[in-house]
Amino acid sequence: MKDHSLLSRRTILRRSTAIPAASIALGGSAFAQSSSSPPGIPESMKIPGGPFVNPPYGVPSAFEKDVVRVLPSAPNPFPTGSRSPLQSLYGIITPNGLFFERHHAGVPTINPDQHRLMVHGLVERPLVLDMEDIVRFPSVSKIHFLECSGNSSSQYVGPSGKTAQEIHGLLSCGEWTGVKLSTILAEVGVKPKAKWILAEGADAAAMTRSIPMDLAMSEGILVYAQNGEKLRPEQGYPLRLLLPGVEGNMNIKWLRRLKVGEKPFYTREETSKYTDILPDGSSYEFTFAMDVKSVILSPSGGQKIRTGYHEITGVAWTGHGRIKGVDVSTDGGRTWRQAVLQEPVLSKALTRFRLPWQWDGAPTIIQSRAIDEAGRIQPTRKKLVERRGPNYVYHYNAIQSWKVSDSGEVSNVHA
Amino acid sequence: MKDHSLLSRRTILRRSTAIPAASIALGGSAFAQSSSSPPGIPESMKIPGGPFVNPPYGVPSAFEKDVVRVLPSAPNPFPTGSRSPLQSLYGIITPNGLFFERHHAGVPTINPDQHRLMVHGLVERPLVLDMEDIVRFPSVSKIHFLECSGNSSSQYVGPSGKTAQEIHGLLSCGEWTGVKLSTILAEVGVKPKAKWILAEGADAAAMTRSIPMDLAMSEGILVYAQNGEKLRPEQGYPLRLLLPGVEGNMNIKWLRRLKVGEKPFYTREETSKYTDILPDGSSYEFTFAMDVKSVILSPSGGQKIRTGYHEITGVAWTGHGRIKGVDVSTDGGRTWRQAVLQEPVLSKALTRFRLPWQWDGAPTIIQSRAIDEAGRIQPTRKKLVERRGPNYVYHYNAIQSWKVSDSGEVSNVHA
Repeated sequence: MKDHSLLSRRTILRRSTAIPAASIALGGSAFAQSSSSPPGIPESMKIPGGPFVNPPYGVPSAFEKDVVRVLPSAPNPFPTGSRSPLQSLYGIITPNGLFFERHHAGVPTINPDQHRLMVHGLVERPLVLDMEDIVRFPSVSKIHFLECSGNSSSQYVGPSGKTAQEIHGLLSCGEWTGVKLSTILAEVGVKPKAKWILAEGADAAAMTRSIPMDLAMSEGILVYAQNGEKLRPEQGYPLRLLLPGVEGNMNIKWLRRLKVGEKPFYTREETSKYTDILPDGSSYEFTFAMDVKSVILSPSGGQKIRTGYHEITGVAWTGHGRIKGVDVSTDGGRTWRQAVLQEPVLSKALTRFRLPWQWDGAPTIIQSRAIDEAGRIQPTRKKLVERRGPNYVYHYNAIQSWKVSDSGEVSNVHA
Repeated sequence: MKDHSLLSRRTILRRSTAIPAASIALGGSAFAQSSSSPPGIPESMKIPGGPFVNPPYGVPSAFEKDVVRVLPSAPNPFPTGSRSPLQSLYGIITPNGLFFERHHAGVPTINPDQHRLMVHGLVERPLVLDMEDIVRFPSVSKIHFLECSGNSSSQYVGPSGKTAQEIHGLLSCGEWTGVKLSTILAEVGVKPKAKWILAEGADAAAMTRSIPMDLAMSEGILVYAQNGEKLRPEQGYPLRLLLPGVEGNMNIKWLRRLKVGEKPFYTREETSKYTDILPDGSSYEFTFAMDVKSVILSPSGGQKIRTGYHEITGVAWTGHGRIKGVDVSTDGGRTWRQAVLQEPVLSKALTRFRLPWQWDGAPTIIQSRAIDEAGRIQPTRKKLVERRGPNYVYHYNAIQSWKVSDSGEVSNVHA
């Protein structure tokens, strides 16, 4: 084995002997190719491929049938969402077919020709807009993550969930296209005393949240397209609100109404739910931004690794701007090395990180710790739980620890 | 109509009267909402939505059923590709289900467990790698466009094709993840006199192209994932070559072999095809990079617009780095205005541009003209055809002219 070789030569040789004799063989003359009768021509080269044109709207390979969204691992008679297979994803874009879902009364079917957005309340010129009106306004396209504020919440209690998907899969990232909320608000003319906006969805839950005017004006987008195509039904087709970096449920789907007011509207979803209960029983209200967080996706829970070279890779994100750095430990937090961040590092988007690692076969714990440009740093689970007490449900962002056993099995632990 | 209002108030009022009386109405007290009995509650709010969890792998809304890939408009008994619906796409990412296809012997079905990549020829240590080996190497993720070198070629002859999809749809853009070709070449140890690499696909066409070593080493990627998930079958599952900015057919799909040599291999696809025939009958060989180009997608051919405000938007791209600027003319090329480029502007990726426009209802011609950081500028069709003569088939990159008739109908013309 040459020093500069990343994979063990022995490994490659051992593995390549598993190739059937009739197929390609490694080394020497058997390796030479002849265009008339080359050794090891695969079946795919002997007959024309499948239909010349695939389905007008394509689908993944049948060999990837297990890469799908799943329900939460905890039993639930009324499942209200599904999780992205993070450990089987690459880069930072989540394909729409695997984008996590969370809804409060199922997925409504809305005919875009009949959909309307009302903008009213403390405005000079209340408006009703149809989708054709909305898409005529100036648009923007931005890559941003979306995370349910309850993502990873099972970790407050114990190491529950096996895979990154089960534990952290209420997280995805896409390229969103829509009209800046500030553009629409300029159109209706917001009155001076207006400070909050109620956003309402056209689902049977009439999902509603109150949004501070500053937040709405600075980054809010009325989104009609995701990853190049129109929104998917479970993502709010034909129109949703996007508040980059802000907890998922505020990004109201199937958006039908914006009411401008002076004060928060204290809706069900921001009083009985989505508050953060402190040790003394009182609650934080309106904790909007998702905090700095990261998770190693390879190797991660449920996988089995061999000794030798690995690229440790995962994603980091923060609701407070850009990720500044990700440190990785392969010895349970004693020492840390800085991972490489894949460019472009975008504000409030997933950031892919990578670090080379040689695993020597000894049991260990691997961890990642993200730092953002606001100076926030991901805490250990111990510190987070100490600070927040036993009643917290949302906004879990502690360091994820993956144990690698001597047999190479990776599992979810609390280090 | 207020001066700062983007859409005509008259238009909005006229359109909103089309809302059924039982639904929401514009203005005055009818606009006030009551949570007990608000006017115009849509059906979607009265009953729970569809299945709580959508298919494990999601699909677009049924209302978007016409947004699909299509065959080329020219009759062809053996269709070998399909085109992206550019005029229905947003931002810069093309979803995998709508990514253009081009193949030479259909789409092979390849079991990734059985797939092998041979790297041999002028190398110190020839290797056979399986997919498990390949994904263990250090990876990168990059957003790049891919364009068939024959894209838009019908425009050399006459204004053929109606929509942006029909004319320019052999173009898409995705986030690609894979191993740098330079990493694999370091692993095998390229011999000093090696200057070219043969790349071969495992399809029944045994699609092969020769790649200069410099190009391979600088930017080549062995791609296994696209837009977050594993490659789709029609995109080369489980492994393809990506040469950012280089004509589509060189980005060999279903990649099974890399042979390192001293000279180009002069394969069928680079001798009988994919050369550029000059007026005197001789040919340019190895014209790799796709040139600077742009197209307005809204408004574009086949659409019908109304008078008033429009956001002109489209995409620009170049195989020579970043797009530096896009000028837009709304008067047939007499005057030009600079469009806004959507950040991030990435090298060898689609770049979305936007420009506000008030259409006064008079017939006109709209055009876009891209400039890249290498100083290249998109030519008029007249200049391009003059320079290249009548035999050219590939690398068409002239300015696209869309005529807007007095009735608002948009059509493909040669200005």
